Amino acid sequence: MKKLINSPDTVLADALAGISAAHSNQSVDTQTCVITRAGGPSVGKVALISGGGSGHEPLHGGFVGAGMLHAACPGEVFTSPVPDQMVAAVNGGAGVVFIVKNYTGDVMNFQMAAELAADDGIEVATVLVDDDVAVKDSTWTAGRRGTGATVFVEKIAGAFAEQGAGLGEVAELGRRVNAASRSFAVALTACTTPAAGKPGFELAEDEMEVGVGIHGEPGRSREKLEPASAIVARSLDAIFADQPLAAGDETIVMVNGLGGTPLIELYVAYAEVAKYFAERGVRIARNLVGNYITSLDMAGVSLTVCKADEQMLALWDAPVNTPALRWGA
Amino acid sequence: MKKLINSPDTVLADALAGISAAHSNQSVDTQTCVITRAGGPSVGKVALISGGGSGHEPLHGGFVGAGMLHAACPGEVFTSPVPDQMVAAVNGGAGVVFIVKNYTGDVMNFQMAAELAADDGIEVATVLVDDDVAVKDSTWTAGRRGTGATVFVEKIAGAFAEQGAGLGEVAELGRRVNAASRSFAVALTACTTPAAGKPGFELAEDEMEVGVGIHGEPGRSREKLEPASAIVARSLDAIFADQPLAAGDETIVMVNGLGGTPLIELYVAYAEVAKYFAERGVRIARNLVGNYITSLDMAGVSLTVCKADEQMLALWDAPVNTPALRWGA
Repeated sequence: MKKLINSPDTVLADALAGISAAHSNQSVDTQTCVITRAGGPSVGKVALISGGGSGHEPLHGGFVGAGMLHAACPGEVFTSPVPDQMVAAVNGGAGVVFIVKNYTGDVMNFQMAAELAADDGIEVATVLVDDDVAVKDSTWTAGRRGTGATVFVEKIAGAFAEQGAGLGEVAELGRRVNAASRSFAVALTACTTPAAGKPGFELAEDEMEVGVGIHGEPGRSREKLEPASAIVARSLDAIFADQPLAAGDETIVMVNGLGGTPLIELYVAYAEVAKYFAERGVRIARNLVGNYITSLDMAGVSLTVCKADEQMLALWDAPVNTPALRWGA
Repeated sequence: MKKLINSPDTVLADALAGISAAHSNQSVDTQTCVITRAGGPSVGKVALISGGGSGHEPLHGGFVGAGMLHAACPGEVFTSPVPDQMVAAVNGGAGVVFIVKNYTGDVMNFQMAAELAADDGIEVATVLVDDDVAVKDSTWTAGRRGTGATVFVEKIAGAFAEQGAGLGEVAELGRRVNAASRSFAVALTACTTPAAGKPGFELAEDEMEVGVGIHGEPGRSREKLEPASAIVARSLDAIFADQPLAAGDETIVMVNGLGGTPLIELYVAYAEVAKYFAERGVRIARNLVGNYITSLDMAGVSLTVCKADEQMLALWDAPVNTPALRWGA
């Protein structure tokens, strides 16, 4: 295993120390393992809180800041955070929205945290993200896995909360964004967790995993390696089959690297995505090309498509000031 | 070779098509292979133009936009761009500053372009970047290699040009930023160019290349793999030995991933950097943690330290609106 770490046991603590040192507009509690906006909660506004296992950076800590998350609760690598973390992150304010990727451990622990918060008189609504069309009922999931749409939900619902929308409205919009989004991922290599020290699965030099999960969970099939054009086409075919898009529809599209794929290759993939959409007359109104929800050092790409309405696009454009997404600020 | 590409021959063309489709505030000439700001040259302002082999994305195209570069000229992967590209990128305006990383081919071709531009009556000044303290006279370089300081030069001199500074002033500031900056890189794995199809050098499972170049050029030594703390310490020792920094000095520091290193590991490294600086009382006034000048899929990290004065810090903070660096806009 070749990793730039001190020890497999201290990766999360060490990374949190780095995040704390790097970002003066974030406040990191290295005891409870919670990343919040510096300067305390926004009085009178709904607070978005997310979290999940580490190893998917910049998700979620990189999205903590004005216009997006109030706080992020990172677990150990590929391990759910515990309810105490979410409870520590909760602030009274105007209520809290938990944004939860659909993995059994995350769902259970956020549910427990919501109950604890309710005991303290804090209103919590939950948005469950389950956008990955590849498979149902995977290694760590009942139903669909939650992946790239999380970024869209956090940005759009976060902007709505920043504008002063109420708890019910913010949660409802977050659910609408998730319902309008679909993702599909292809891995060229497996990822290696620091604890395991070896790849989570084996892929031959000429193979790829089609429909892979963000922890390296099995996808739909193992196939021979294909050119970028074919990889993009089969991914978008799966997405469009699940949610048909018509000429004139507007979308937000993310071409996301899984951690070990160079940016030049993500642009090669984006060119194929743009061609696919143009052929169908579907408009890409906004896009992201880069590493936003990764799987440690996995090589590969995930595509996420959100069929966006005017409200979603306007909120997408609203100012955001986080380490990983920043504009208008 | 596992790459998300269509063919080794079309990587640059395909990536440029993707950049063109993704960034509406950039204009990509896919014939001449030049990326410029959309909307034409800024009248009456000095234009910064950079370029070099591809495979280092987001450098340089990702830094084209308001407050930074006017244009970027990407060559094929790890191959210098040709003078015709720079000439195509040149606009009259108030003169042009070429920002050139110190590699023999780049230096020669930018020099030729400067002569061609001069023939057309366009004033060109050149800033040569040579910040890598690891080795002198490497595979493709006479003198020191140019690496991470390029990002600092492009940001700071770009902001100065945006404010209306004259050609001589902008170039002089760019040279001062380079002179104040030092870099050092360590590779955990080699990178694979699409054309070669196999790693550029061999590293055993327990080895690292200390002082590696951005194309995988040999460094100072091959060593046994070390913890992040030791890798950071030996890199900063080399940097501080070359340019001593005293308590109270202010710096801009970049912890840069070489393309295949997950962000969580870069934060682990940044924590070690922050500790090293704190122990010496040297202040990190600004920082970047992420992938800014990469080497395709190479795993590893480069550190760049700029001893910054007040003018540099103020220009660092000035608005910038590019795909890879964006704030205040």
